[in-house]
Amino acid sequence: MMLNQVVQEMLPRIEEELRQVIEATSSPNTPQLSAMLRYHLGWEGEGTGQEAQGKRIRPLLVLLSAQAVGGKWEQALPAAAAVELVHNFSLIHDDIQDQSTLRRGRPTVWVKWGIAQAINAGDAMFTQAFWALNRLEQTISSQTALEASRILHQVCLRLTEGQYLDLAYEKVDTLPLEAYWPMVGGKTAALLGGCVELGGLCSHASPEQRTALREFGENLGLAFQVLDDWLGIWGDAALTGKSTESDLVSGKKSLPVLYGLANSETFAQRWRRGKITSEEVHDIAGLLQDCGAEAFTLNTAEELTQKALDALNRAFEQNRERSLLLSELAKKLLSRKS
Amino acid sequence: MMLNQVVQEMLPRIEEELRQVIEATSSPNTPQLSAMLRYHLGWEGEGTGQEAQGKRIRPLLVLLSAQAVGGKWEQALPAAAAVELVHNFSLIHDDIQDQSTLRRGRPTVWVKWGIAQAINAGDAMFTQAFWALNRLEQTISSQTALEASRILHQVCLRLTEGQYLDLAYEKVDTLPLEAYWPMVGGKTAALLGGCVELGGLCSHASPEQRTALREFGENLGLAFQVLDDWLGIWGDAALTGKSTESDLVSGKKSLPVLYGLANSETFAQRWRRGKITSEEVHDIAGLLQDCGAEAFTLNTAEELTQKALDALNRAFEQNRERSLLLSELAKKLLSRKS
Repeated sequence: MMLNQVVQEMLPRIEEELRQVIEATSSPNTPQLSAMLRYHLGWEGEGTGQEAQGKRIRPLLVLLSAQAVGGKWEQALPAAAAVELVHNFSLIHDDIQDQSTLRRGRPTVWVKWGIAQAINAGDAMFTQAFWALNRLEQTISSQTALEASRILHQVCLRLTEGQYLDLAYEKVDTLPLEAYWPMVGGKTAALLGGCVELGGLCSHASPEQRTALREFGENLGLAFQVLDDWLGIWGDAALTGKSTESDLVSGKKSLPVLYGLANSETFAQRWRRGKITSEEVHDIAGLLQDCGAEAFTLNTAEELTQKALDALNRAFEQNRERSLLLSELAKKLLSRKS
Repeated sequence: MMLNQVVQEMLPRIEEELRQVIEATSSPNTPQLSAMLRYHLGWEGEGTGQEAQGKRIRPLLVLLSAQAVGGKWEQALPAAAAVELVHNFSLIHDDIQDQSTLRRGRPTVWVKWGIAQAINAGDAMFTQAFWALNRLEQTISSQTALEASRILHQVCLRLTEGQYLDLAYEKVDTLPLEAYWPMVGGKTAALLGGCVELGGLCSHASPEQRTALREFGENLGLAFQVLDDWLGIWGDAALTGKSTESDLVSGKKSLPVLYGLANSETFAQRWRRGKITSEEVHDIAGLLQDCGAEAFTLNTAEELTQKALDALNRAFEQNRERSLLLSELAKKLLSRKS
């Protein structure tokens, strides 16, 4: 079967599982609270639709991993819902923390309902994630449900560590290159690693296979983030389109910026002088290119992609063709241009 | 054994369990994040000490309930730590939502580290609560750990419902009396009910006994809150001491206020005219007294206390003396004057 065909089969089931969780955990006393959650998930309110829902990459990783290991992917649906809810809870809180007014093209939850209610909506969705995960007891076993919750707790701890670092980094002028990894490791890689590991767990993968699967997911997450950093400076939108969207304007301490700070005195001096304007974006991207930051970023993404695919091969050493859909999804994720 | 003696034995073990959880879930990459959590728990920073730690009522309820049902209370320590962490996570977020600058006499987490980091610290502690609970697998069994997580998920869902209502009520002028119950049911009673039920679960209470225990805890929580509302208007601090501390000045929609809105046109008119000053507190408390709001509040607290004790008796029908420490703690909680 082709990836697209499988994904088209899985997506409605993911949506259905999510809807069941939100419904079962909603109280008749607080219909507005559930409405906030349904809005954030893209089901309700202005701009509803596919775009507003996001791509559901994380639950797809859970299900494709469960299928690749040889189990029925339907049994892993509770874990798929759980990771999507964790992801979305963290987005609701992120948007408050970063004061972002738009998410997937729509006003963020805090913009619509205020900061206090948005914090609470995130907390509700966090609880729902773990509630959802417990349903593995029905589809698989108590032991699997408990082990899955251990994996997801670990992921959530790393998410909060990554978020701590991200927020802390905003307050400092400069950072060593190494500071980058625990931050993106927590913010992006931990959850993707958890998704693939959870999928494996649901299909009774061996401990070695689970470790290899997690490594695949973590490196995929890191590669994805590094590529995102590249797009943030040299992508079409950042460079030639709306240059206000450049990470250089927002001041994000992305990988190329940290490389530039360590390797180009000219760039470092300009960076320390304060906010970069959209008129400067082209020249400063050029500065970073000259000092090797672009090449370094693309090489790093390439290396991480290779590490991810190596880990995937290790996970399916005996049965390479089982990993085809996962590697296809990975390559698709890593070839996006915007 | 006397309650005090038992409590003195339990308290250091609760603290030890909490410390183990915080330590085991902390990363060397983010020492400052752990420091925020230790500060909030009263172990570190300015004003450290007993007062800053709070009374640990919730974990004590877990352990006393476990002991009353006949198990070893030590086995319930993971649940005790979990409920205290849930309580404290919700306080960290509450303080942001209510813009409270002081908690147990010390600057709140958001005042010290900013709103963004405080949201994240709360999220970290929320995760730690569920992480802590999973340790029941080691002290009791997988089945107990899973059932306990189900109970705590339910509690957390109700916490977010209560919090939603509390925040929503701030925005409206008037409210019917009935609106009070789902709000305090979620904000206060659900967690206390959960504590006593979790304690019972850890000692293998029967389903009927668990239900009765939860009813005891929930009604105790409601009675506690109603009494708190009485103290907020007629307590020493509110009435004769610093009248700025009166709930009438803060505009809180407490039970006597809702009763007054429904039963005294004079009070309702004054309430709708806007913020009550500390000079008016004495007269307006008198208005509420005249329309029967004080008597209604005290009667309600009395009824709820009776319901709590009845449920406790039902839980220990066969073996009434087993419930003595729990009922002593309940009475102590409900006789406080400030």
